[in-house]
Amino acid sequence: MKITLAYGGGGEETNKLIHDLFYKNFSNPVLESAEDAAVVEMNGKTAFTTDSFTVSPIFFNGGNIGKLAIAGTCNDIAMMGAKPEYITCGFMIEEGLEFGELEEIVKTMAKELEKAGAKIVAGDTKVVPAGSVDKIFINTSGIGTVIKPGISAHNLKKGDVVIVSRDIGRHGTVVMAHRYEVETDIESDCKVLWEEVETLINAGIDIKAMRDATRGGLSAVLNEWADASGVGIEISEEKLPISDEVIGLCEIFGFEPMDLANEGTFVVAVDAKDAEKAEEILKKFNSSASIIGEVTDDRKVVLTSPWGSKRYIELPKGELLPRIC
Amino acid sequence: MKITLAYGGGGEETNKLIHDLFYKNFSNPVLESAEDAAVVEMNGKTAFTTDSFTVSPIFFNGGNIGKLAIAGTCNDIAMMGAKPEYITCGFMIEEGLEFGELEEIVKTMAKELEKAGAKIVAGDTKVVPAGSVDKIFINTSGIGTVIKPGISAHNLKKGDVVIVSRDIGRHGTVVMAHRYEVETDIESDCKVLWEEVETLINAGIDIKAMRDATRGGLSAVLNEWADASGVGIEISEEKLPISDEVIGLCEIFGFEPMDLANEGTFVVAVDAKDAEKAEEILKKFNSSASIIGEVTDDRKVVLTSPWGSKRYIELPKGELLPRIC
Repeated sequence: MKITLAYGGGGEETNKLIHDLFYKNFSNPVLESAEDAAVVEMNGKTAFTTDSFTVSPIFFNGGNIGKLAIAGTCNDIAMMGAKPEYITCGFMIEEGLEFGELEEIVKTMAKELEKAGAKIVAGDTKVVPAGSVDKIFINTSGIGTVIKPGISAHNLKKGDVVIVSRDIGRHGTVVMAHRYEVETDIESDCKVLWEEVETLINAGIDIKAMRDATRGGLSAVLNEWADASGVGIEISEEKLPISDEVIGLCEIFGFEPMDLANEGTFVVAVDAKDAEKAEEILKKFNSSASIIGEVTDDRKVVLTSPWGSKRYIELPKGELLPRIC
Repeated sequence: MKITLAYGGGGEETNKLIHDLFYKNFSNPVLESAEDAAVVEMNGKTAFTTDSFTVSPIFFNGGNIGKLAIAGTCNDIAMMGAKPEYITCGFMIEEGLEFGELEEIVKTMAKELEKAGAKIVAGDTKVVPAGSVDKIFINTSGIGTVIKPGISAHNLKKGDVVIVSRDIGRHGTVVMAHRYEVETDIESDCKVLWEEVETLINAGIDIKAMRDATRGGLSAVLNEWADASGVGIEISEEKLPISDEVIGLCEIFGFEPMDLANEGTFVVAVDAKDAEKAEEILKKFNSSASIIGEVTDDRKVVLTSPWGSKRYIELPKGELLPRIC
């Protein structure tokens, strides 16, 4: 069975899709009240974010566009020290998409939402004629109450320590491998990160800044932090966790692992006194978590090799990999 | 100048687009803090909604896709008796789109936001290769504090009065005319409706249910209400405001004005005692506002002609007009 334009018309078929697929999988009273907007309870500081997902292919090693859509938005909320609570979901579907593919995407989303402890409370479905969109795009927006206020890219000070939650470059490598039709066993890191973040907060770690290293990769996060806080960051190449497969494929295709997108990997800057404790906590979630460097006052992002040579890491330029997420 | 894939890579060019176009037009401190998620203050009941806009053509009589994106999301919030406060915006742009077109869309959005008294506090930009999307899709999500709680499609009771805020079918007719290359002076009704709603609330009108009649038109709203509240609704054909141009074009193309999308027209069900007062208020915003009918207990939506004949109005079926909004 294929999705036809009628499913996007706002009439009977749209209602059927909403009831038989979306309500069935995202079931909760707020969503099912089917008002123009969801009404939820919020108190005090609220994190609010949006992300559109256009990844190609829509199914990849370690996930699919639906898993990405939940992880991406929940993670942006978590990075502000907030618990992902309520999510909205906008589907833009090309007519002719197999219903089974949409169903698999939706089921994956429901599973990820459960892990995040979040709910989809409002949605929108557009079906567009063949050629107006490639298969499916998904937008997710989300809100959550800030549990630990004050986390910000503007907070970094000399001496703060930078930790990465796991080995970098996986999601970008997986999409690149699909794109160039290279067979590989590497899986995307795509994952909701709230549990890791909540554990850091509950352990009383003095978190200065936190960011998931998505498009633009680790290079973009470090440069944006350096710029926002008016500091430098020095990273030790030998401490940077990168799997052999990622290094191998990056060498073949001429990519820099630090520039590649991650979808379940975050960077956290903490006060030096808490650095080892934070690393230890993150290692329980993924053994490759590692302290990778520290904040300096020279306003540049620098990578130091094991033999002492240094090179600047800049904000990535150019098109990198279109439709990576 | 054209938008290239590099503008979506998450690196230097993306930053340039964000600073030179989005921050410049949507300027506010929360957005410009450029964190992973916006942090805003919310209290108590919050309305939360999302909508993706895929309209074709992206510029039409009376508006463009940007105006639609702000009006659509602000209106969904307003329909819950909530003030639209914070908006997120996800752009999905086809490479090759003229920068000038994007700029015009963004400027229109800024103007509409000002009318709504709302702010864009977070955003996302994807640029996808030619052929993966047609020109531009925009998702907007929004939150707002509920000022008048309890408005719901489930509230209708026999005797409540149904009012429409202006003449129906304009937006659908305008898009249809563009699609069939018919010249017309009709303008879309596309408009933020918060001022109208706020005035009704401040006047103490006992609002039962409120909904903007977008995809599926007035037919969809009335059927969804009847279904949600387990009631019927009887509409008087002679009181239904429809412009002559809309009637004329609908006759030519075989559309039913009640099924056509509106983007700045809402239906409100009020307690009978407040009906005339509510109509009077809405007439100040648009002289075609009209009491159109009342809630019955027969579980059907019925249209009564001036000579007394009745016909059922059903939930629209089939594809209607794809990419209407």
